[in-house]
Amino acid sequence: MNWITGFHAVEEALAAGRPLDRILVAKGRHGERVEEVVRLAKSRGVPVRFEDRGQVDRATGTREHQGVAALAAAKPAVELEDLLAAKGDGGLLVLLDGIEDPHNLGAIVRTSLAAGAQGVVIPERRAAGLSPAVARSAAGALEHTKVARVPNLVRALMDLKEQGVWVYGFEAAASKSYTELDYSAGCALVLGGEGRGLHRLVREACDQLAHIPLRGPISSLNVSVAAGVVLYEVVRQRSLRLDKPVVPDHSQRSG
Amino acid sequence: MNWITGFHAVEEALAAGRPLDRILVAKGRHGERVEEVVRLAKSRGVPVRFEDRGQVDRATGTREHQGVAALAAAKPAVELEDLLAAKGDGGLLVLLDGIEDPHNLGAIVRTSLAAGAQGVVIPERRAAGLSPAVARSAAGALEHTKVARVPNLVRALMDLKEQGVWVYGFEAAASKSYTELDYSAGCALVLGGEGRGLHRLVREACDQLAHIPLRGPISSLNVSVAAGVVLYEVVRQRSLRLDKPVVPDHSQRSG
Repeated sequence: MNWITGFHAVEEALAAGRPLDRILVAKGRHGERVEEVVRLAKSRGVPVRFEDRGQVDRATGTREHQGVAALAAAKPAVELEDLLAAKGDGGLLVLLDGIEDPHNLGAIVRTSLAAGAQGVVIPERRAAGLSPAVARSAAGALEHTKVARVPNLVRALMDLKEQGVWVYGFEAAASKSYTELDYSAGCALVLGGEGRGLHRLVREACDQLAHIPLRGPISSLNVSVAAGVVLYEVVRQRSLRLDKPVVPDHSQRSG
Repeated sequence: MNWITGFHAVEEALAAGRPLDRILVAKGRHGERVEEVVRLAKSRGVPVRFEDRGQVDRATGTREHQGVAALAAAKPAVELEDLLAAKGDGGLLVLLDGIEDPHNLGAIVRTSLAAGAQGVVIPERRAAGLSPAVARSAAGALEHTKVARVPNLVRALMDLKEQGVWVYGFEAAASKSYTELDYSAGCALVLGGEGRGLHRLVREACDQLAHIPLRGPISSLNVSVAAGVVLYEVVRQRSLRLDKPVVPDHSQRSG
């Protein structure tokens, strides 16, 4: 149990988007600073509980908590370098350009793990953090997935490209279909935020762009559905490569 | 604008899960029956607004509303027969065996339309109705998608099979992968509820069962993601069939 105590430390943890399980506020503690912590916690999806001061003492193991304490989540974010194991064949990363809905982020973490990705990269700002709401939607997958929070997504894309990772961005306006890309080498899939798509600099940093074909009067898929469609195209292409080595057609016919 | 007025009619519409845009209650109207309507509306995701009685008069065009009125949503459910256009080649239906989360239902309606499906079939009971929450998640797709609510999903599966539609069920325990199924003929994809999967009788009514391969400690995907993965495998297989007629290998090499 990793308790963060006192206003300054709790405010910093919230501002940095550190994954927090919950926040305790001692009953009887009031004022603007408490309200600010509660407001921030709400915006991050961190539950707040009001407890007797004695209970906060016991939970945190100290009396030096100023009546406010945050329980750090088990899952810390990793560094981008920790994900570079993905640079070889079979490597697979997912980069999210500003996904704000924690349910979508959770579902994408879950699908990424299920599809064999090594990790997920999210920006530090203007994006859902690793909140309990994300963990719930990830249905256990968050504990097993490496998630890197980076200060600058474009910089992260550049670093990945320097390491030999192919960077593929997905957006409706691209001319190629996602099924036409070659996912055999290590690659990073970049998906944009709900209803907004990729930022210009992110788009320009991609090696290739592709779309998911849409019929009817539909301009986009839900981003977690789009991530699933592309991730499982990677799985499909790679399983073909592994299970069915290229052989002349006549040998297949005789089989 | 299709207004339903009076306690009895509004209660019935709510109980039947009819898609409702909103409910108006005249200010000053109190009592158990109002509370029951508000409670039911909440459970169905239908917003309730309290308005002056004069405004309710004007909105509904009558004074005979007992202080309660519901605005029927533009989108009524269709009959299963309306979906049987899907029985030929290129036909595609999605059947949902007890999806309770309106966000998932909405995302599936959206993806179904984007993938070219003719419609979605949902059971009348123990499932999310066509609420405004579903319409929001569907992001406009609900207005363009035929959704049939059937009293008995197994009966609907039997009817579809009699009409020559192939019925494919998806669950983790199936031995085949979803990519091994042949989606060229008209087919119906059956997906189970979150964390529960297909009911036994539904599973037994399917022509074939298949799974989506999952790595790591993951037992299932979010159901709207799973629907997207399978729907886009159908799109992929069918586009191969249409765009790229089977030709001998050497002709491809010379191209």
